[in-house]
Amino acid sequence: MIHQTAIVSDKAKLGSNVSIGAFSIIHDDVEIGDDSVIGSNCEIGYPTKLAEGLPLIIGKGALIRSHSIFYQGSIFGENLVTGHRVTIRERVVAGKALQIGTLCEFQGDCEIGDYVRMQSSSIIGKCSKIGNFVWIFPYVVLTNDPHPPSNYQLGVTVEDYAVIATNVVVLPGVTIGEHSLVAAQSLVKVDVRPHKVVGGSPAKEICNTSAIRLKDGSNDKAYPWPRHFHRGYPADVVKEWLETYS
Amino acid sequence: MIHQTAIVSDKAKLGSNVSIGAFSIIHDDVEIGDDSVIGSNCEIGYPTKLAEGLPLIIGKGALIRSHSIFYQGSIFGENLVTGHRVTIRERVVAGKALQIGTLCEFQGDCEIGDYVRMQSSSIIGKCSKIGNFVWIFPYVVLTNDPHPPSNYQLGVTVEDYAVIATNVVVLPGVTIGEHSLVAAQSLVKVDVRPHKVVGGSPAKEICNTSAIRLKDGSNDKAYPWPRHFHRGYPADVVKEWLETYS
Amino acid sequence: MIHQTAIVSDKAKLGSNVSIGAFSIIHDDVEIGDDSVIGSNCEIGYPTKLAEGLPLIIGKGALIRSHSIFYQGSIFGENLVTGHRVTIRERVVAGKALQIGTLCEFQGDCEIGDYVRMQSSSIIGKCSKIGNFVWIFPYVVLTNDPHPPSNYQLGVTVEDYAVIATNVVVLPGVTIGEHSLVAAQSLVKVDVRPHKVVGGSPAKEICNTSAIRLKDGSNDKAYPWPRHFHRGYPADVVKEWLETYS
Repeated sequence: MIHQTAIVSDKAKLGSNVSIGAFSIIHDDVEIGDDSVIGSNCEIGYPTKLAEGLPLIIGKGALIRSHSIFYQGSIFGENLVTGHRVTIRERVVAGKALQIGTLCEFQGDCEIGDYVRMQSSSIIGKCSKIGNFVWIFPYVVLTNDPHPPSNYQLGVTVEDYAVIATNVVVLPGVTIGEHSLVAAQSLVKVDVRPHKVVGGSPAKEICNTSAIRLKDGSNDKAYPWPRHFHRGYPADVVKEWLETYS
Repeated sequence: MIHQTAIVSDKAKLGSNVSIGAFSIIHDDVEIGDDSVIGSNCEIGYPTKLAEGLPLIIGKGALIRSHSIFYQGSIFGENLVTGHRVTIRERVVAGKALQIGTLCEFQGDCEIGDYVRMQSSSIIGKCSKIGNFVWIFPYVVLTNDPHPPSNYQLGVTVEDYAVIATNVVVLPGVTIGEHSLVAAQSLVKVDVRPHKVVGGSPAKEICNTSAIRLKDGSNDKAYPWPRHFHRGYPADVVKEWLETYS
Repeated sequence: MIHQTAIVSDKAKLGSNVSIGAFSIIHDDVEIGDDSVIGSNCEIGYPTKLAEGLPLIIGKGALIRSHSIFYQGSIFGENLVTGHRVTIRERVVAGKALQIGTLCEFQGDCEIGDYVRMQSSSIIGKCSKIGNFVWIFPYVVLTNDPHPPSNYQLGVTVEDYAVIATNVVVLPGVTIGEHSLVAAQSLVKVDVRPHKVVGGSPAKEICNTSAIRLKDGSNDKAYPWPRHFHRGYPADVVKEWLETYS
């Protein structure tokens, strides 16, 4: 299961049934849970003085696709899935079933809940706090410096079930409320209230999410999205959603 | 021509005079045409259940630069050229002489014509249809979900000779008309008419493309761009352009 | 110091105490200064006909992180630091202590001063001229073609101490004045005057930078930023700043 070209530190702790792809490097301070797959050309546990001595802990059932880089000093719950070429820096604490799209970058020092899904190429700045069941689409940036460059960091908060569409910049200290929707290409300068749609540059409140209808012919309400979108979530979660939202 | 560190499946079908760079991986379901060059650290024919059994077919004369990843299940015409670190997922059908810039991502299930040229870091969503001689500049996103997240996909159509400038988001279902120009940083919510310039967030019609003059001192019309821009296109194409557009 | 899996041309000139990571490739026309570290999976001195015979010269004390690609034909001063997966094309001339974030791309033919710092994922177009002590945040694009596609290139100029925030597009030929601040998500179409804040799409002048106060509780002026931000700069530079700006 460990490719003969992979370079695996004998200090790394690999669970049972862990597979490591060709040309990948596993450094010292790494613990990888059972039944995980690390693709080719990855670098896992990249050493940094900013997290010296801290292990990288990856829960069981992970799938880390090729060319990804994880620094030492973060903790991921079970069933992590990544695209290719993600970059994950130190001191990230993430829940279970996190999905990170190709080319995403976590700049470190952030907290992420359960079942968060990110598509490609977003940047999660330091001090970000992301809740559960959040969706982040491509080229989103969660910033943290109110007057760059400075030594002062003010993170973004994204609450449960919020959806941030493509190419959105969220300014430092902003809270994106639960079940809200931030439209594509928005610049978010002020807090977004729960269940609201905001859009524009700067983003303004447009309507309630409940006003948006599915375009699939059903004309059903599109939000809260757990009403209709269940792909890949566990049966008990979907059961609860159906009771809560329908 | 195959570097000694490359890992090449003996089920892969390589044409004559194919070169494979160091630390590259060629999987089973791959056919690469004659006179092609695959750079170092590439992964070609990445297996996916979404295209099981479908081959990746790369036409002759391809140049795939280093660190690129192609999934199984796509077809590319001859003379494909890519930058570094492109990610191409399953079921892409592309014509000849496609140029894909560094870090571009094709999310799969899309159709692309002949002589399309893309600069760096754009994302082509599923269900996109791109015509011939289209230009796409950096950080463009062709989206497909009208109410994310959902199971409903509505692709973007880009017609022949259209030009999409830097950092543009095109919303689901929009058609970008032939010979049109979408200005930088636009959010395109409605169809763009042929030969029109649109810009802004949301994008509005600004003028006809014929109103734009070259700034090189000639004061000639800048559009249709085949009037003056011929670099790298074959002689018969350029001959036809000179007859049609001048 | 040279990993046994690295492929190093015997024509490359490596200084003393240079370290080369696993699976990295060093091509012929490369000179790397003393005490430099090249991470794993890098490709240094990538050959291009556009710079045939021109060496890549990297000054002493460089730290190039893993998966980065440098073409032949550029010159970097001492103490270069890069993130992961940077792409640097031919004929870049850069001063000392340049910091290039993860996934940045230099498209070649540009000039960069001393102590420039870039965060992730920005694109520096050909013909760009960047001064000293400039800051560039993620997803910035310095463009160069006033009517794409064309053969005419008009570069962007960024003067000393200017700050360009996240997701900004600067149009061809624009000058960003010294000590100015371009707010996030701006589209910059006209020159930015020194010491001014601009923002919006298109960007408009908002105020003087001196009007912005630190949000760290001190209420001190946030700009010129060398008043308060000194991390990683040499002591003599900081001493001069304290005399000039406080």
